[in-house]
Amino acid sequence: MAACTVYTTTKSLNTKCSISSPSKSHWGYFAQKQRLVIFRTRRRSSLCVITCGAVAGDHDQTVVIGLAADSGCGKSTFMRRLTSVFGGAAEPPKGGNPDSNTLISDTTTVICLDDYHSLDRNGRKEKGVTALDPRANNFDLMCEQVRALKDRIAVEKPIYNHVTGLLDPPELIKPPKILVIEGLHPMFDPRVRELLDFSIYLDISNEVKFAWKIQRDMAERGHSLESIKASIEARKPDFEAFIDPQKQYADAVIEVLPTQLIPDDNEGKILRVRLIQKEGVKHFSPAYLFDEGSTISWIPCGRKLTCSYPGSKFFYGPETYYGHEVSVVEMDGQFDKLDELIYVESHLSNLSTKFYGEVTQQMLQHADFPGSNNGTGLFQTIIGLKIRDLYEQIIASRARTPVGAAQA
Amino acid sequence: MAACTVYTTTKSLNTKCSISSPSKSHWGYFAQKQRLVIFRTRRRSSLCVITCGAVAGDHDQTVVIGLAADSGCGKSTFMRRLTSVFGGAAEPPKGGNPDSNTLISDTTTVICLDDYHSLDRNGRKEKGVTALDPRANNFDLMCEQVRALKDRIAVEKPIYNHVTGLLDPPELIKPPKILVIEGLHPMFDPRVRELLDFSIYLDISNEVKFAWKIQRDMAERGHSLESIKASIEARKPDFEAFIDPQKQYADAVIEVLPTQLIPDDNEGKILRVRLIQKEGVKHFSPAYLFDEGSTISWIPCGRKLTCSYPGSKFFYGPETYYGHEVSVVEMDGQFDKLDELIYVESHLSNLSTKFYGEVTQQMLQHADFPGSNNGTGLFQTIIGLKIRDLYEQIIASRARTPVGAAQA
Repeated sequence: MAACTVYTTTKSLNTKCSISSPSKSHWGYFAQKQRLVIFRTRRRSSLCVITCGAVAGDHDQTVVIGLAADSGCGKSTFMRRLTSVFGGAAEPPKGGNPDSNTLISDTTTVICLDDYHSLDRNGRKEKGVTALDPRANNFDLMCEQVRALKDRIAVEKPIYNHVTGLLDPPELIKPPKILVIEGLHPMFDPRVRELLDFSIYLDISNEVKFAWKIQRDMAERGHSLESIKASIEARKPDFEAFIDPQKQYADAVIEVLPTQLIPDDNEGKILRVRLIQKEGVKHFSPAYLFDEGSTISWIPCGRKLTCSYPGSKFFYGPETYYGHEVSVVEMDGQFDKLDELIYVESHLSNLSTKFYGEVTQQMLQHADFPGSNNGTGLFQTIIGLKIRDLYEQIIASRARTPVGAAQA
Repeated sequence: MAACTVYTTTKSLNTKCSISSPSKSHWGYFAQKQRLVIFRTRRRSSLCVITCGAVAGDHDQTVVIGLAADSGCGKSTFMRRLTSVFGGAAEPPKGGNPDSNTLISDTTTVICLDDYHSLDRNGRKEKGVTALDPRANNFDLMCEQVRALKDRIAVEKPIYNHVTGLLDPPELIKPPKILVIEGLHPMFDPRVRELLDFSIYLDISNEVKFAWKIQRDMAERGHSLESIKASIEARKPDFEAFIDPQKQYADAVIEVLPTQLIPDDNEGKILRVRLIQKEGVKHFSPAYLFDEGSTISWIPCGRKLTCSYPGSKFFYGPETYYGHEVSVVEMDGQFDKLDELIYVESHLSNLSTKFYGEVTQQMLQHADFPGSNNGTGLFQTIIGLKIRDLYEQIIASRARTPVGAAQA
């Protein structure tokens, strides 16, 4: 449990573990734990030696969730759905930097990994690297701080100001019950990845990403079609090199694709969404449709339920994803109204709900969130419930294990 | 209930209602019911006027089931499955003609409509008509006798001797609880059709029929491939003109097709079988898979159930069949062993079983019958259970209705 492994930082500019703006109080909090002295000693020798794994006993660890996705892919909606499952609204830290990227609720703190940019907007321009490039991000600090929070030690986390493009003075993050790290690289660095109790990848297909960008940047921000295409193309190489490969490590992937219900649709309004759930993950039991382990396609719209064009179609079945056995639940199309959602919910199993209709209730509560009438909202809500379940299982298993046993 | 309609005999040689060999005792039984005097009076005037509909009160009517199919299509297996559902074995009438086509069990009597051939083998040869041609069949007598049996009057039914090709002296048929009329034309004549409480059509596709004929006539009887092809081709025009159109009237159709699991399979060993169930039929509520009224495809072979190649695939959904709304349950492939059958049964609903696993129990009991490992056996068994349920519903509804009310 307390074993220390030596990792080298992968593809990082910061191979000498330079940490951007660690404030005094940050180190003060670190120093509260004796064992971290080793760490500081090693750091003095200028070797990039970072301890990893748990330092505190499992009994008082924070549960850490990783959520990876490109920007503009609905991470914040997902986070609002997740915190809602735990019964509280998520808000920025009170009295702090108004440009903070952090969201805090009773149980959960969501930190944005953009805050670990080692290069600000100008720095990236100078070096000719994008924010997706690991060289623009400080994985050593990310690892240290996530590990500290997991071990229930508060940290002074930097803030990347999305408005100014600069690194603002750090903000204090206290260890929550559940820490969500969301951003471009939560599963990129193996040391950070090892700290995750559960990981999710939001995989938006290029076609849908393009349709969404057009809608947002063209309709709402007045950008030209050409400039949108150019900005997508410019991000592609780094996205494919550094972001996309993380999905192989995810315990759950939400894949968003164009609908197959309308031939050659490229509007991006009707979506086919796939929830890819890894088998054999501790404390995580995949949701399924009708009959666990078999392959099913289901069109619920028929005699009992009449849906408007193009209706909806579900699929469930076992697949292989990057060499892992996974169970996939898929929804193509959208809900017209409540009846359909509760009808669908009643045919899904292993949803980790606490009462009949909880998925529907959650979706209704946030009917104004994007994706509430399709598979993105449905699967985000299901993953939210799964994380609550995982959290409760971890807490329950700790309660059953005597403290001494855990540390033996 | 006692209303009389005048029908003319369609496409029949016997437009003058000539009845082949009605014996004395036949008329004797008829004369037991006063109302039939009307009928006899009309007959005396030499008009083809046949009463139809029920004559006796509904309370003591026999339930009449029609089963249509070409010869060699598994009607007799189906009948054995059906009588088994009612708990008794079906046997030929004791002490009678050893070439009788009739099967009798405790509850059910199955008569073969070949017994209503008006032309024997020589007669058909002379006139140049096949047994499929209505002109070779006496629908007037068929109608009279089925109606009489429905009204619980015994009849002296002719026997067509399949060995000699001649019409043998009649045999006495007492009214059973359930009368099954099976053969080429149970739904051909509208007067007979009207007497049916439930009707089934066994629809074997040409490809499968051909594969079966080759297996039986070539392998077992030494016929040549050419002669088999010629005999099939010779039957085709009459089959398409007189037999096939009956399926539009059937309450349930069992369609047997080549598998789609093996590309271009023409062996006819692995079958795709579809149970087409008409909606809105009194006392008949279609079986379904998982979710009534929706469209589902299901491959049960997966993680929990491992099946050998090519596995099996199920489908369920609403369709339109000859302008009628129907529900279709489909099975492609075959069962390897018991586990699969009970597994499949447990996901089917509305099977009209009396206990969990009754379908599987029935199939196991007759594991040696053809089709016990595929959809033909499964759907024949389900239809057997549906007929038992229909019978019990009819009996129960009669018990609830006072006799006077039924005859008012």
